[in-house]
Amino acid sequence: MVGMIGGGQLARMAHQAGIPLGVRFKLLADTPQDSAAQVVSEVVLGDYRDLDTLRRFAADCDVITFDHEHVPTEHLRALQADGIAVRPGPDALVNAQDKGVMRARLDSIGAPCPRHRIVADPADVTAFAGEGAGYPVVLKTVRGGYDGKGVWVVKDEQEAQAPFLAGVPVLAEEKVDYVRELAANVVRSPSGQAVAYPVVESVQEDGICAEVIAPAPDLDPALSDEAQQLALRIAGELDITGHLAVELFQTRDGRILVNELAMRPHNSGHWTQDGAVTSQFENHLRAVLDLPLGDPRPRAGWTVMVNVLGGDYPDMYHAFLHCMARDPGLRIHMYGKDVKPGRKVGHVNVFGDDLDDVRERARHAAAYLRGTITE
Amino acid sequence: MVGMIGGGQLARMAHQAGIPLGVRFKLLADTPQDSAAQVVSEVVLGDYRDLDTLRRFAADCDVITFDHEHVPTEHLRALQADGIAVRPGPDALVNAQDKGVMRARLDSIGAPCPRHRIVADPADVTAFAGEGAGYPVVLKTVRGGYDGKGVWVVKDEQEAQAPFLAGVPVLAEEKVDYVRELAANVVRSPSGQAVAYPVVESVQEDGICAEVIAPAPDLDPALSDEAQQLALRIAGELDITGHLAVELFQTRDGRILVNELAMRPHNSGHWTQDGAVTSQFENHLRAVLDLPLGDPRPRAGWTVMVNVLGGDYPDMYHAFLHCMARDPGLRIHMYGKDVKPGRKVGHVNVFGDDLDDVRERARHAAAYLRGTITE
Repeated sequence: MVGMIGGGQLARMAHQAGIPLGVRFKLLADTPQDSAAQVVSEVVLGDYRDLDTLRRFAADCDVITFDHEHVPTEHLRALQADGIAVRPGPDALVNAQDKGVMRARLDSIGAPCPRHRIVADPADVTAFAGEGAGYPVVLKTVRGGYDGKGVWVVKDEQEAQAPFLAGVPVLAEEKVDYVRELAANVVRSPSGQAVAYPVVESVQEDGICAEVIAPAPDLDPALSDEAQQLALRIAGELDITGHLAVELFQTRDGRILVNELAMRPHNSGHWTQDGAVTSQFENHLRAVLDLPLGDPRPRAGWTVMVNVLGGDYPDMYHAFLHCMARDPGLRIHMYGKDVKPGRKVGHVNVFGDDLDDVRERARHAAAYLRGTITE
Repeated sequence: MVGMIGGGQLARMAHQAGIPLGVRFKLLADTPQDSAAQVVSEVVLGDYRDLDTLRRFAADCDVITFDHEHVPTEHLRALQADGIAVRPGPDALVNAQDKGVMRARLDSIGAPCPRHRIVADPADVTAFAGEGAGYPVVLKTVRGGYDGKGVWVVKDEQEAQAPFLAGVPVLAEEKVDYVRELAANVVRSPSGQAVAYPVVESVQEDGICAEVIAPAPDLDPALSDEAQQLALRIAGELDITGHLAVELFQTRDGRILVNELAMRPHNSGHWTQDGAVTSQFENHLRAVLDLPLGDPRPRAGWTVMVNVLGGDYPDMYHAFLHCMARDPGLRIHMYGKDVKPGRKVGHVNVFGDDLDDVRERARHAAAYLRGTITE
């Protein structure tokens, strides 16, 4: 029995991937309307911040894993002390929960990062800027940010005040001069087996992943190898079990720098559902159960994933009819979520041999579903 | 909301395929241990032979469809009279329930069938044999048979007594001199859209499908076209909605004859989960919801499906570990069933460009899991 904490779309798709493996799957969700709670047979409703709830949930599970990174580290340590297999474990997961811890740990293993420092106040930000290329500086709360939240790009000390208002530690990072964002995704099992997916390009809009292209077009094979080796090394050094997404900047001068880590199935790996022999969701489950990992190789020359964001249509049904009829090759993945403007409600994968064609089809579907285009 | 009647593996895999479409899925199952009941969130336990149970189950469903063909025709007519969408409908489904009705209907549309006649007693079987090629003759109960059950191949009037003992109508068919069995699988929606999958070869052992090769090797393109056209014509003439499997004999003299019809996802279509752009399960759901159908084209040169039958291991876990480690490209589909000797408990798909390699890998996995080989 795999127990997954969190009822979002990652849990929904992990459940889907576990069905063919014969995996029994149990969910800790907030509400019965949660994306995964709609489709999983065994759902426990409860608060993941409450240790007693976690303990009761975990009692009959062979392993606990996660839809998100928000379970308090100390609770995970307590579960582990109870003898529960927690994968990834708290000492690994804290690197995805706390950007300060993550940067320090990556420094300690020599992984290339943007210049960074924990800063105490706006004057300290100016001091940090002065040690490097100056303003603008990127400021991040060390915990709780995602999809652009908890991140500021500030151009002077005046603007640098906002992040400190919440009273949580703030990490300053240089604003990297990057040409694009990449992601190197790997999966590692407790026995140490690991697989690496092809390095992908991740296209962001307004701080949210909009599109992923697999593999990353025109990527120097040496840089691709370096990114895969880096992700495998991070997974090994940090003793990560399950899926690890290493989000990277590709700099103008041809280096890669680690942006973020995510220790769960990740938006940059959704393309694997239709584009790889074994999806990230299946390999995450195989890994946390310490089963042999599946083949991560691509099945098509190109696979493009586009996120479907809520837009003009409160009900996307008719837009879907149009898209499905227009392109029978679209692989549609809906999350069962209410549509709100800008909310990720699903994604579409398209694969084929001609990147321009594949990308045009995927972008058309996303734009049509959002209501940006009507033909 | 799709309501599926029957908790077997076909419902399990249909639920899995419905998750990405955002389909709400409800199951009528016999027990909570049923293959599909283990993984579906909304399960009603009850007897599909009871009309009141069916009515309560169907009340909040947009459409009712089936994991098996055993729901009494008159109950389906009653549901339809209540205004419930039943897909396939009772007038179509009866052709998959009653082999006598099916043969008469196929005759009426000129579909090629083995010589056949409803027979009254053993003497009548001898008379039927005398009109054609003589004994042996194939005898089938018109209702209730599957996987070789309810079928006898008799070589004389003495042997012809057994099928009549149950007191149900018996259909006599010539024993066809066939070189192999094929299946032409199509999906048709209520609005009349239809797609045809590549014609496959189905290899039977002891009356049970053991292996499916997609596409059927060395099949004359004209015969392949004929088989697809025949299946599309049957689907249209019989007003079938959802997936239709037309099991065919390829005769020594180069003809195709209809063996059986199945109006639901079918074992001969399991390869589509990993071998086609859109699986039979997804297209069945699209069809019964009257959504545009997905691309049925193959994704690999060859896909081979082998059924995993229960064998020497009451618990297959360690055999699975071995197979998964030996071949990371195996696509494993387990049904969550208790292992009993000879019982279908799962299947494995393998795809690639080299048929010999693909078939060897698939056969090795099936034999190892059954315990027939140990290395």
